[in-house]
Amino acid sequence: MIELTAKPVIKTINQEILSFISNLSFAPRLNIIRINNDPASEYYVTNLVKKGEKIGINVDVINMPLDTDEKDVLQLIRRFNDDRNVNAIMIQKPLPGGFNEDILTGAIDPDKDVDGFHPVNMGKLLLEKDGLKPCTPLAVIETLRHYNITTRGKRVVIIGRSNIVGKPLAGLLLYKDLFGDATVTICHSRSEKLSDITKEADILIAATGKAEFVNKDMLKSNSIVIDVGINQIVRNGKTSYVGDVDFNSCSKIAQSITPVPGGIGTVTTAMLLKNVIKAVNIQNKVDIFD
Amino acid sequence: MIELTAKPVIKTINQEILSFISNLSFAPRLNIIRINNDPASEYYVTNLVKKGEKIGINVDVINMPLDTDEKDVLQLIRRFNDDRNVNAIMIQKPLPGGFNEDILTGAIDPDKDVDGFHPVNMGKLLLEKDGLKPCTPLAVIETLRHYNITTRGKRVVIIGRSNIVGKPLAGLLLYKDLFGDATVTICHSRSEKLSDITKEADILIAATGKAEFVNKDMLKSNSIVIDVGINQIVRNGKTSYVGDVDFNSCSKIAQSITPVPGGIGTVTTAMLLKNVIKAVNIQNKVDIFD
Repeated sequence: MIELTAKPVIKTINQEILSFISNLSFAPRLNIIRINNDPASEYYVTNLVKKGEKIGINVDVINMPLDTDEKDVLQLIRRFNDDRNVNAIMIQKPLPGGFNEDILTGAIDPDKDVDGFHPVNMGKLLLEKDGLKPCTPLAVIETLRHYNITTRGKRVVIIGRSNIVGKPLAGLLLYKDLFGDATVTICHSRSEKLSDITKEADILIAATGKAEFVNKDMLKSNSIVIDVGINQIVRNGKTSYVGDVDFNSCSKIAQSITPVPGGIGTVTTAMLLKNVIKAVNIQNKVDIFD
Repeated sequence: MIELTAKPVIKTINQEILSFISNLSFAPRLNIIRINNDPASEYYVTNLVKKGEKIGINVDVINMPLDTDEKDVLQLIRRFNDDRNVNAIMIQKPLPGGFNEDILTGAIDPDKDVDGFHPVNMGKLLLEKDGLKPCTPLAVIETLRHYNITTRGKRVVIIGRSNIVGKPLAGLLLYKDLFGDATVTICHSRSEKLSDITKEADILIAATGKAEFVNKDMLKSNSIVIDVGINQIVRNGKTSYVGDVDFNSCSKIAQSITPVPGGIGTVTTAMLLKNVIKAVNIQNKVDIFD
C-alpha cells in the first residue's frame, strides 16, 4: 500500500507560487474576516499567516467582535472589494448565529472569492469556465495529478454531496482532461446498498465528515482511496485526528490511500494560497495558470 | 411497458400557469432574440408564440439580420434587462459564427434568464438555492414527479455531461427531495464499459444526442428509461424524429419509457413558459412555486 502524502504535492505548489511571485512587483494580499473565538479557527489562521509569510503572500486577519452587526461586515467586504491592494477575501467559519452566510458570500467580488463559494464561481466550475474554484476539490485533483493517477474513463465514486466538496469535485472530475473525464458517481446518506456502489470504484473519495466511515469491506481490491475528512476523536483519553477512512483496515485492500493528517487537508491549505495567486491572475487577466 | 407521455404532464403545468396568471394584473412577457433563418428555429418560436397566446403569456420574437453586430445585441439585452415590462429574455440558437454565446448569456439579467444558462443560475442550481433553472432538466424532474417515480435512494444513470442537460440534471437529482436524493452516475463518451454502468440504473436518462443510441442490452430489466434526445433521421426516404433511445428494442425490457416525440421535449417547452412565471415570481420576490 502506497501513502499518497501531501508533502511532495505542496512542495510543487509552493514552487509554482514562489516562481509566480518572483515576477510580481508587489506582495499579493489575502484578507481574512474572522468573527469567532474558536480555537481550531485561531490555529488555522495563525498557521495560514505563517505559511503566507514564508512564501511571500500577506495574510491579514481582521478579528471582529462576536456582537458585530452583519451590515458592518458587508461594509467591510465592499471596502475590500474596492481596494486594489486586496487580492483575495475570505470569511472564516464558524460565524456567530444570526449571520446569513449566503448574503456574506454573495457580497464578495467573485474575482476575489478565494474560497470559490460564490454562486458565479460555482456556476463557472460546472460550466468548465475559468474562475476561482473551491480549494478542497482542487486539492484532490492536484494530488491525483501529482501522483499521475489519471481518472479518464475510470469509475470514481464520491461519498458526500456537500456544496464545498462533493458537488464541485464531481464537476471537476467531468472536465475534459486526463485528470477529469471520469465516470462519476455521487452517493450520500440516502444512497441504498452503499457498499455495492463503493466497490465499483477504481478511485473512491470519502467526504462524509464521519470518522473512519469507510472500511475495507467497502473497497474493490487495488483501488485508490482519497480521504477528504478530518475528524477529531478521543480514544483512551487522548485527542487525535482521523479521516473519513479507516486507514488500518483499508490499507489491507487498497493500492494507495491519502493519509490523515498529512493528506488532502494539508494540500487544501496550499491550494488556498495558490488561489490567491489565481485571483491576482484573474484581476490582471493573465491566464498563465490555465 | 408503460409510455410516460407528455400530454398529462403538460396539462398540469398549463393549469398551474393559468391559475397563476389569473391572479396577475398584467400578461407576463418573454422576449426572444433570434439571429438566424434556421427552419427548425422558425418552427420552434412560432409554436412558442402560439402556446403563449393560448395561456396568457406574450411571446415576442425579435428577428435580427444575420449581419447584426454583437454590440447591438448586447445593447438590446440591456434594454430588455431595464424594461420592467419584459419578464424573461431568451437568445435563440443557432447564432451566426463569430458571436460569443458566453458574453450574450452573461449579459442577461439572471432574474430574467429563462433558459437558466447564466453562471449565477447554474451556481444556484448546484448549491440548491432558488433561481431560474434550465428547462430540460426541469422537464425530466417534472415528468418523474407527475408519474410518481421517486428517485430517493435509487440509482440514476445519466448518459451525457452537457452543460444544458447532463450536468444540471445531476445537480437536481442530488436535491434533498423525494424526487432528488438519488445516487447519481454521470457517464459520457469517455466512459469505459458503458453497458456495465447503464445496467446498474433503476432509472436511465439518455442525453447523448445520438439517434437510438440506447438499446435493450444496456438496460436492467424493469428499469425506467427517460429519453431526452430529439434526432432527425431519414429512413427509406422519409424524414422522422427519434430519440436517443431505440424505443422498439428497449420496450421489450424496460418497465416504462418516455416516447419521442411527445415526451421530454414537449414537457420542456411547457417548462419554458412555466419559467416565465417563475421569473415573474422572482422579480416580485413571491415564492409560491417553491
